[in-house]
Amino acid sequence: MSSNPPDWRQRLHLFLFDPHTPSGRLLEIFWIITTLTSVLTLFIESAEPHSVAVKLTEPSFFLLLEYIFTLLFTLEYLLRLYTSPRPLRYAVSFYGIIDLITTLPLYIFWLWPDIALRYMMALRLLRVLRLLRLIKLLRYMGSANVLWDSLVSARKKLFLFFGGVMILLCLFGGLMYVIEGPEHGFTSLPVSLYWAVVTMTTVGYGDITPHTPMGRMISSVLILLGYSLIAIPTGVMSSYMTDVMQRNRHRRRCSECKISGHDDDATFCKRCGGALEDKTNQAGIKPA
Amino acid sequence: MSSNPPDWRQRLHLFLFDPHTPSGRLLEIFWIITTLTSVLTLFIESAEPHSVAVKLTEPSFFLLLEYIFTLLFTLEYLLRLYTSPRPLRYAVSFYGIIDLITTLPLYIFWLWPDIALRYMMALRLLRVLRLLRLIKLLRYMGSANVLWDSLVSARKKLFLFFGGVMILLCLFGGLMYVIEGPEHGFTSLPVSLYWAVVTMTTVGYGDITPHTPMGRMISSVLILLGYSLIAIPTGVMSSYMTDVMQRNRHRRRCSECKISGHDDDATFCKRCGGALEDKTNQAGIKPA
Amino acid sequence: MSSNPPDWRQRLHLFLFDPHTPSGRLLEIFWIITTLTSVLTLFIESAEPHSVAVKLTEPSFFLLLEYIFTLLFTLEYLLRLYTSPRPLRYAVSFYGIIDLITTLPLYIFWLWPDIALRYMMALRLLRVLRLLRLIKLLRYMGSANVLWDSLVSARKKLFLFFGGVMILLCLFGGLMYVIEGPEHGFTSLPVSLYWAVVTMTTVGYGDITPHTPMGRMISSVLILLGYSLIAIPTGVMSSYMTDVMQRNRHRRRCSECKISGHDDDATFCKRCGGALEDKTNQAGIKPA
Amino acid sequence: MSSNPPDWRQRLHLFLFDPHTPSGRLLEIFWIITTLTSVLTLFIESAEPHSVAVKLTEPSFFLLLEYIFTLLFTLEYLLRLYTSPRPLRYAVSFYGIIDLITTLPLYIFWLWPDIALRYMMALRLLRVLRLLRLIKLLRYMGSANVLWDSLVSARKKLFLFFGGVMILLCLFGGLMYVIEGPEHGFTSLPVSLYWAVVTMTTVGYGDITPHTPMGRMISSVLILLGYSLIAIPTGVMSSYMTDVMQRNRHRRRCSECKISGHDDDATFCKRCGGALEDKTNQAGIKPA
Repeated sequence: MSSNPPDWRQRLHLFLFDPHTPSGRLLEIFWIITTLTSVLTLFIESAEPHSVAVKLTEPSFFLLLEYIFTLLFTLEYLLRLYTSPRPLRYAVSFYGIIDLITTLPLYIFWLWPDIALRYMMALRLLRVLRLLRLIKLLRYMGSANVLWDSLVSARKKLFLFFGGVMILLCLFGGLMYVIEGPEHGFTSLPVSLYWAVVTMTTVGYGDITPHTPMGRMISSVLILLGYSLIAIPTGVMSSYMTDVMQRNRHRRRCSECKISGHDDDATFCKRCGGALEDKTNQAGIKPA
Repeated sequence: MSSNPPDWRQRLHLFLFDPHTPSGRLLEIFWIITTLTSVLTLFIESAEPHSVAVKLTEPSFFLLLEYIFTLLFTLEYLLRLYTSPRPLRYAVSFYGIIDLITTLPLYIFWLWPDIALRYMMALRLLRVLRLLRLIKLLRYMGSANVLWDSLVSARKKLFLFFGGVMILLCLFGGLMYVIEGPEHGFTSLPVSLYWAVVTMTTVGYGDITPHTPMGRMISSVLILLGYSLIAIPTGVMSSYMTDVMQRNRHRRRCSECKISGHDDDATFCKRCGGALEDKTNQAGIKPA
Repeated sequence: MSSNPPDWRQRLHLFLFDPHTPSGRLLEIFWIITTLTSVLTLFIESAEPHSVAVKLTEPSFFLLLEYIFTLLFTLEYLLRLYTSPRPLRYAVSFYGIIDLITTLPLYIFWLWPDIALRYMMALRLLRVLRLLRLIKLLRYMGSANVLWDSLVSARKKLFLFFGGVMILLCLFGGLMYVIEGPEHGFTSLPVSLYWAVVTMTTVGYGDITPHTPMGRMISSVLILLGYSLIAIPTGVMSSYMTDVMQRNRHRRRCSECKISGHDDDATFCKRCGGALEDKTNQAGIKPA
Repeated sequence: MSSNPPDWRQRLHLFLFDPHTPSGRLLEIFWIITTLTSVLTLFIESAEPHSVAVKLTEPSFFLLLEYIFTLLFTLEYLLRLYTSPRPLRYAVSFYGIIDLITTLPLYIFWLWPDIALRYMMALRLLRVLRLLRLIKLLRYMGSANVLWDSLVSARKKLFLFFGGVMILLCLFGGLMYVIEGPEHGFTSLPVSLYWAVVTMTTVGYGDITPHTPMGRMISSVLILLGYSLIAIPTGVMSSYMTDVMQRNRHRRRCSECKISGHDDDATFCKRCGGALEDKTNQAGIKPA
């Protein structure tokens, strides 16, 4: 059973991508650093906007780096595809699609070398495709944590809150559309809604501002509403997090003396020093 | 007793508008979707501001849609009026007036076809009347929730807080009116108050800004006050929500084993699996 | 003892200014309304900035109103001075000085009628003196509440927080002064500090903005710091308020069955319906 | 043992710099006031930007003050160096380097008198070096407090939060770079990221704003995300502070009757009046 191909593939998968093996943990750090370097390079390259088109045709330091990154991420994609227990399922999964898309820009440029030279928009799009590599990082961030638990517990209240806020924004936007009108920048309902969002959330660009006394009064009301309404989601999150943290404290027990009440980040029992039970069993694939 | 008109009307009311019956729940979803589509149409229509007047006179896709929506909402209004146990009370209620007003724009346009062509303001007003359909959604949002309970419990403290904030805003606005004066945009006390609101709530449009060193110093003080005072309503809401959630947890009991301490969103007892008592008895009209 | 003048004055004081007597409570409402009307009048008057100087010389509706308000507040000041147990102490107290100052503007104008006509700044100052009437309202807001208790308990932590924020603001302001320099609006250290305050607190007027890539990077760091540091005072206030509310709940006992644990706004015992002990003994002057 | 030089130096150190001795506490206040005055002088001096270069060459009040401050801080540095138990360790420590750097500006000016006259940037740099004196104040602020404990406990969650926010900012920045493009100010990816930071944190300078309907829609989404995401770090801090405060309450015991549950700022036992155990043993050097 241990010599048939699937098992060998599984071993390679554990070796390369399982964060519970030493090699997997090291490679995880390698991929995080590679991804961050790749995105950083993209930012530096993009900071010199005048010579962008040239940069992809003429040999340059940035092009060399992009060759290396594309090679590495293509290798990663093929290895993940090959070692995955269900290759097709990986290929159509969220991370599978992201892994594929973020290797494409250079290949697209090879196939249609003129596209980036002709259409500036296409060049910008190819760049942003490379930016999506950041999403690969989410894989390593873990999702079973207090932040996520609190958000999920509070989803109904937060949804209700945002429903109410959206209605308020539409009504105030509409009111200002009537009062200020196109002559003061409120040219249409969507523009007025954009103004309401920018105002109520205290962003305040200043590209559209009220000019009539009535408009300024209504703006002030909307602003004070936004200033105080922020207390509601904050209060919701605070109370849910306090709640989730207290529950976590009671959920974990010492495997030796069976007492609970340990801190969220404790690994050993505070009374007898025994190991604490794991919060979630993240074992994944069982050893063969 | 089951054949006299009022009872038949009551049955129709239960069938159409009571969310506790299957038909009522389906129609609730229908009205929510209709309302949202109607408002979305309005936004798209308003995004092309140049041909607005024409749109209502010439046959167009948007006009056709508006005919359908007006027909639907008129029908809803008449049905609600007819099936209501107290028609007059519904007609003068908040939702009754909203239901009526939001069906009017097209009728107004039919009666005075010239009004929208002559006065742009009237056209904008007719549009915003249609926007009020969003308020109809509040009917379906439910009001007996933790958010509302916390707001009501905290109303005294929040009122005190806003009283204090208003006094601060007036005083700082007045101070800046003296220091900066009309030559830097602080033309009157209301304008200075508007500036104070925009500044203290960290909106910061930038349409009126201090230019003298003294004015900038006082602005900085007001800004830092606003930045830190937001902690007060947030703290109030957090503490009240933590409180309301803990009380809710102790309020609901299992109908079988009578223990309390269940989560806010639990429907069954965590120990014996029995049904939990309902938080609020929302039965409404008893079956005949 | 009940016929000598001081006692009679005391009775008048109780009758006029003690909120525990029915007459005092009615007059309290009268003074609140008068003050708010007076300030509202001032705002409306100031909204027409062109004819201000004329308004004080020619008979007008606003001038008539100001005569009435000045008369009322002068009467209030004299009555408070006369009925106060210690007139001198009242005269030099905070509220005594505010009461006096806010009656002055019209008298100053009578004494030096030319001042407001010649110096616009003097006119604005006279107006803002009238605005100080808002401070009189603080007298009726009460100070022994949870908001104030929490602020006092948290004062050390909030002071430490603001010390740290001030140091951060100065350092970032200084850094931007070096990097951006006078050519991008950072003309001096105070101006850079003003920019840092406006930026870190997320006000963002946009009158001074970074233009160099380095300056924009440092701004982004300062902005993200400001965005997250706001969590500290909010967290402090939330935890102190939760604490103060829990303590209050245990502090008040039923005078009948002696149990504690009542809600903050409860007036009667939740178990036996007996009256709860008062939080603070605000009796003031004992009956003669 | 009490007459050898190291001990005499230690006594001087205790006398001058230990806040547990009366002289040390007095000198601490002296240094705080000196530092604040020095920085205040710098701000006032910098507010007159036209005569800066002249000010350092011609005798002036500000130059005289700067002589005095430089003398004082040099003396402080030498005394700290001389009385420190390990002089070299102090010299390379964070505070040692800050103490040295902030005395340098005047000496640099003496060595190269032309530098400030020729390069405005150098002059600004010398000024900001003096501004670093503010960091000396951190020495006196104490670090073992609830704020710091909460931040350290919450560091994992806050780090995760900021990782997620950074990814969001990059993606939204990239998206706007594609949609709005250089013609609306989004000239490169770093500029778009700067815009995303300014927008999501609700600063909203208004120097770069979206102009296309699509861009405004995406901005609105980013703004509403930023408006609501702030609830997460606030919730984290609130729950950790509530937690740290409750733990502190149970950690400190009365040295007499051994009960715990005292307030955070209590110094004596609330039941028997005995002294409470100190939170942290900050004794430092034991008396000889």
